[in-house]
Amino acid sequence: MRAEIITVGSEIILGSILNTNAQYLTRRLGEIGIEVLYHTSLRDNKEQLKHVIENGLKRVDLLIFTGGLGPTADDFTKEVVSETLGLRLYLDNNIKNSIKSYFDKTNKTMTSNNIKQAYIPEGSKPIKNDIGTAPGIFIEWQDKILVLLPGPPREMKLMFNKYVIPLIKQDYIIREATIKTIGIGESYLETILKDIINSRGNPSIATYASEGVVDIKVVAKGNNEEEVDLLLKETIEKIRNKIPENIYSYNNETIEEVVFKLLKEKNFKIAFAESCTGGLIASKFTKIPGVSEVFDRGIVTYSNVSKIEELNVRKSTIKKHGAVSKKVAMEMAKGLLEKSNVDIALSITGLAGPSTGSENKPVGLIFIGIATKEKLITIESRLSGDRESIQNKASLKAFNELRKFLINM
Amino acid sequence: MRAEIITVGSEIILGSILNTNAQYLTRRLGEIGIEVLYHTSLRDNKEQLKHVIENGLKRVDLLIFTGGLGPTADDFTKEVVSETLGLRLYLDNNIKNSIKSYFDKTNKTMTSNNIKQAYIPEGSKPIKNDIGTAPGIFIEWQDKILVLLPGPPREMKLMFNKYVIPLIKQDYIIREATIKTIGIGESYLETILKDIINSRGNPSIATYASEGVVDIKVVAKGNNEEEVDLLLKETIEKIRNKIPENIYSYNNETIEEVVFKLLKEKNFKIAFAESCTGGLIASKFTKIPGVSEVFDRGIVTYSNVSKIEELNVRKSTIKKHGAVSKKVAMEMAKGLLEKSNVDIALSITGLAGPSTGSENKPVGLIFIGIATKEKLITIESRLSGDRESIQNKASLKAFNELRKFLINM
Repeated sequence: MRAEIITVGSEIILGSILNTNAQYLTRRLGEIGIEVLYHTSLRDNKEQLKHVIENGLKRVDLLIFTGGLGPTADDFTKEVVSETLGLRLYLDNNIKNSIKSYFDKTNKTMTSNNIKQAYIPEGSKPIKNDIGTAPGIFIEWQDKILVLLPGPPREMKLMFNKYVIPLIKQDYIIREATIKTIGIGESYLETILKDIINSRGNPSIATYASEGVVDIKVVAKGNNEEEVDLLLKETIEKIRNKIPENIYSYNNETIEEVVFKLLKEKNFKIAFAESCTGGLIASKFTKIPGVSEVFDRGIVTYSNVSKIEELNVRKSTIKKHGAVSKKVAMEMAKGLLEKSNVDIALSITGLAGPSTGSENKPVGLIFIGIATKEKLITIESRLSGDRESIQNKASLKAFNELRKFLINM
Repeated sequence: MRAEIITVGSEIILGSILNTNAQYLTRRLGEIGIEVLYHTSLRDNKEQLKHVIENGLKRVDLLIFTGGLGPTADDFTKEVVSETLGLRLYLDNNIKNSIKSYFDKTNKTMTSNNIKQAYIPEGSKPIKNDIGTAPGIFIEWQDKILVLLPGPPREMKLMFNKYVIPLIKQDYIIREATIKTIGIGESYLETILKDIINSRGNPSIATYASEGVVDIKVVAKGNNEEEVDLLLKETIEKIRNKIPENIYSYNNETIEEVVFKLLKEKNFKIAFAESCTGGLIASKFTKIPGVSEVFDRGIVTYSNVSKIEELNVRKSTIKKHGAVSKKVAMEMAKGLLEKSNVDIALSITGLAGPSTGSENKPVGLIFIGIATKEKLITIESRLSGDRESIQNKASLKAFNELRKFLINM
């Protein structure tokens, strides 16, 4: 099956935002064996949209639209698709009720233009939107498939993975596995993986780098489950043997989720003391539902006086070694452990920039401390990038050090 | 002039990289008054490229290509464009010599396929590449313009700004302004803006919603700067009069940056006490460079015991009213103000979900407390969405309440 991804909306075409939807959908489609031939982006313009639809119907089998399903007057993807295919729109009472109950639940007033979202083309299937009001639409028309998805990436992704993939899956079997790695560069990783990639390209192996971490995606194709599972298993085993230290998950978990699971296994409570990351570590950790089982508290000691008052860091230590130092990281972790009565305490101090670095303490220098009743360790690291990038890499590094510490306990 | 940006190459269409070239070119073209109607991305495939060129010639006046000008066999943008337009390629000796001298200068060996880059279509202008080997191509064909640029963003940007803009500049002026709003839904906003939007189409007004906030983009066109600036000013004034309370920035700032500026103006220090947002407020705030001028500390009191120990919340208050209550939010803010000696303290407690809601305390219920030496207020709110969305909206709400509090002081 050959696909085109059509992004409707001015945010993309005016350059306000990057087209991450097209990238995401292309990857996911590739993983289930559907080749994407074109990306097309256009404005909220009915005539142009009609032209793009007609074009797409001529050149591909599957058209996936994102955007233009909202309640406002310049949302009309559904209307123009229906018109172009010659399908009548009718009011679906189930959708109307579910939109109404969404508004009731959130104590907002439903305006009349929200009703627009409850109309769907005849012969189409509405696709549930678990976290928003705009339903998606699945249309089989002649020998073509058209899928209409909402524009907001979170809604689009959830809907696509949960409801659309089962509808467009091919008849051979595809299984994928994601191996998540940290602390290893993408180009070095590619060199390592070269031997593993076989000449047939099955399984296919691709790497996707994002700040600080690289995902390895292995996709195996075959005629039955045993064949595919064996292929995947063998390949994962080969990769594991090459980089055992750098893999933190085989189950698509974030590194903070891995830490959460390790803490739960050990029945440990944790607390964080953050300086340069400014609450990012606590914030990432508390995105995990149920984290209160293991997370007690976090202290963002941004000023020097707060480090002293909150964590019992000695004034003299800051004076002698500076706030960004191994010693201060140690005292932060120790002070936090003592005051909060948790099983394990993590501290971090560093220079996120952009200014205030010096020759022997450059921007990107960080110190991490980990304390338990039995042990106190510190890790020094130098990170690169702008302020936000350093904060993000520092938080990943902190979780990775925690992961290694907990595994080796 | 109406334009289409055509991105040729597998990196984009396989999802390996984001299409930053299309975004960059769209913004730059918009700034000089050229409207981009379409982005199209496709693989290195001759037949598909030809199809895309023919399509583009039918629907726009200016086609800008990036990618496919390199020396390898799957670089053929120039060849396919020439073939489609019926133009012969000829060897340009100047280009050949400049490629040769580039190789001499960089001590690299020139391979025979680099000569391919010295061929240009008859009647076209080569465009100089100051930092690479592939020249760009400028073609005027019938009433259309086709511009071929290299794919690497650094080469593309330099070439576009230095050599292409002078060739395609329009004689009218375009200016845009962004008005950032919070606490008002997109569809309700559209109803309010209806009179202003319907007036003439110039300036154009568009709304872009992302979780919790809506941006209003105003774009004005005219013959000279005074005319355009006046149009923008008048429109912004009209919008301001309709929703004075909801606008937090005219300068593309985030709401936390606005709060940062207000605190700096008042020479105030701030501290945060977070429960349901788990450090997100502190984390967003500390993404701002130089925030240490106003930010003292943050306390993430996730467990009940930490609320008692860190913020002096009374055990009896939690027992009587629950951790998610107006009373606890008040005591958190008050306790934080007293212990940290800041000028203003913000607290937040709520239910981010996904579970543990009840009938009178549903998921999404939050309480915000703001304390100064003179004043202590609380705000109750009900938010919708999944855990992450509630946390995000809660943090925006907290910054907005701070903004309003500081403005009305």
